[in-house]
Amino acid sequence: MPYVMVQIPRSPAPASPSGSSVPTSADVARLAGVSRATVSYVLNNTSAVRISEPTRRRVHEAAKELGYVPHAAARSLRAGHSRMVLMPAPTIPVGPLYSQFLSELQGALGRLDYTVVQYGTAGVHGDEAARAWAELRPVAVLVPGSGLGPQGVAVLKRSGARAVVTLGPGTVDGAHALLMDHAAVGRAAAAHLYARGGRRIGVVVPEEPGLEVFSRPRLHGVRHALRGTDATVTELPLAYDEEAAARLAGRWRSLGLDAVFAYNDEYAMLLMRALKDDGVRVPGETAVIGADDLMLGRLLRPRLSTVHIELPSGRDLAELVDRAVRNPTAPPERREVLGASVVARDST
Amino acid sequence: MPYVMVQIPRSPAPASPSGSSVPTSADVARLAGVSRATVSYVLNNTSAVRISEPTRRRVHEAAKELGYVPHAAARSLRAGHSRMVLMPAPTIPVGPLYSQFLSELQGALGRLDYTVVQYGTAGVHGDEAARAWAELRPVAVLVPGSGLGPQGVAVLKRSGARAVVTLGPGTVDGAHALLMDHAAVGRAAAAHLYARGGRRIGVVVPEEPGLEVFSRPRLHGVRHALRGTDATVTELPLAYDEEAAARLAGRWRSLGLDAVFAYNDEYAMLLMRALKDDGVRVPGETAVIGADDLMLGRLLRPRLSTVHIELPSGRDLAELVDRAVRNPTAPPERREVLGASVVARDST
Repeated sequence: MPYVMVQIPRSPAPASPSGSSVPTSADVARLAGVSRATVSYVLNNTSAVRISEPTRRRVHEAAKELGYVPHAAARSLRAGHSRMVLMPAPTIPVGPLYSQFLSELQGALGRLDYTVVQYGTAGVHGDEAARAWAELRPVAVLVPGSGLGPQGVAVLKRSGARAVVTLGPGTVDGAHALLMDHAAVGRAAAAHLYARGGRRIGVVVPEEPGLEVFSRPRLHGVRHALRGTDATVTELPLAYDEEAAARLAGRWRSLGLDAVFAYNDEYAMLLMRALKDDGVRVPGETAVIGADDLMLGRLLRPRLSTVHIELPSGRDLAELVDRAVRNPTAPPERREVLGASVVARDST
Repeated sequence: MPYVMVQIPRSPAPASPSGSSVPTSADVARLAGVSRATVSYVLNNTSAVRISEPTRRRVHEAAKELGYVPHAAARSLRAGHSRMVLMPAPTIPVGPLYSQFLSELQGALGRLDYTVVQYGTAGVHGDEAARAWAELRPVAVLVPGSGLGPQGVAVLKRSGARAVVTLGPGTVDGAHALLMDHAAVGRAAAAHLYARGGRRIGVVVPEEPGLEVFSRPRLHGVRHALRGTDATVTELPLAYDEEAAARLAGRWRSLGLDAVFAYNDEYAMLLMRALKDDGVRVPGETAVIGADDLMLGRLLRPRLSTVHIELPSGRDLAELVDRAVRNPTAPPERREVLGASVVARDST
């Protein structure tokens, strides 16, 4: 492996509580009685140069004694890139499904020796955000949602990212695409409700901001599945609180709906409780289906029917990122990864 | 503000799909017809040097045309530190409460012009992790949990972190401490159950790994609150699935418990369902209390009693971080931030 040795400027000492300055590799070299180059070889684990065990040990001990830590930045300036996989941090609180997915992905990339960094870009979007991400010189970028455009991809690549992968409804020029089409969730729910006899079908649309990215495609999926049939679709805006659910339940009979897709299991539980309290029989008068297949839905009576959503496994995604990093000139991959299947229980 | 100008070495060009190299500030300077120093002044928004508007515009246009992005690493090498607040990413899927807290904190720090970076350190713990974090040269580090020791704090400070803040059960030398004592949750639950007549009190301890950090102090809190009374405490290991809950419910009457603190609302919902299915009356035979005050608990019948947990607001915490960064020589602050209060509903 060729190794490029570059002089890293000594950074000015920031104020530190003890008044002492930040130790540098020069300090380590002095204490260990070796050259700065040797310090760099040892601490960066370079295999190109043979260094004796005792010398290695001396350098490690000196670094430990001084509390010296190599600067990732300097290291990435030398190497041209880092082992950092950057993901924008979610801007809204995440649900259990996504939280689980993130944990898995992080573990899987960690086992491949990458470090996952979630970058909080509150208030900055799309290609503007891409510029901020690029400043950290990640080797790969994973972008959920649909904010990034081809310009953002280009900025990231020009600043050294070997792979840009989007997870969302569409493709972006220059990036690998893991297609997560939430319309499939709506289609599955609608087909199930229709098959069970539903003809006047309600679709809950959460009023909480940030959820449109999921709720819109789910609604479109319902409309799409029912196009050309004798069924009607009624949008039901709903806030996630008991009062809002009670109000909706209060006018339920005037709506004349015989089935409802409640966005997800949490909204379904909220709505089912309100319907029950108003004496609306589920599924007798109205069938109810959620999505996400949460364990809690099984605890309800009637047990909640739901759409089980299959996300890519953390390991699959980590392997795709690794392949893309190793082979940055490969043409963008494009893969459907969201699976949606109905789990029919007692509420439909 | 004094400004230190340091030559940043040109990084070797990584392989990029187009075969072109990463644009540097020298390329921007050439295209704009200005010096590299001017490019740096303009793109880093330095106020120490007066630069005409047309020149500024020329630099910005050239940077845009070339797709040049400053290297955060290089910038932090110059400045001695970054505006990055680093948090270790949670290693287990997070619940709704913590997810909400993270979102708020991120937004609040963003408004103070910090960038929150969640760093995934799968498999690396304590002071070893601190070394990895230090490589990114964050200006502040926020550490939930209890893994970090005084050595880790020292490593972070020596590498330029102006503030280290722990969020957890104890204090660590050299770090600010936001004390989040989950024993308070257990104490509140136990005092409530005892006041309602509970004398043989069960405490659910989740079997899922990673939750001990919460479940242990909650259990200790229960024991502590009941010390010296006539009540007994029984530990109830429980996995988060229906079969495990059914098994526990099946031997419920042989346990002879008249009250149970079910760790949190989700385990409480699981257990209440299983007890109901087995004909155990709640609260008649056994009172049940959860924790977290989730909305779903209100939807159950009987409505679930719970311990409401007050976390520090994202804004308060962001302001504490900012104060600490501005004043790195101030003595470590120490503050109790977790509040626990019982919300009594119908299950106790």
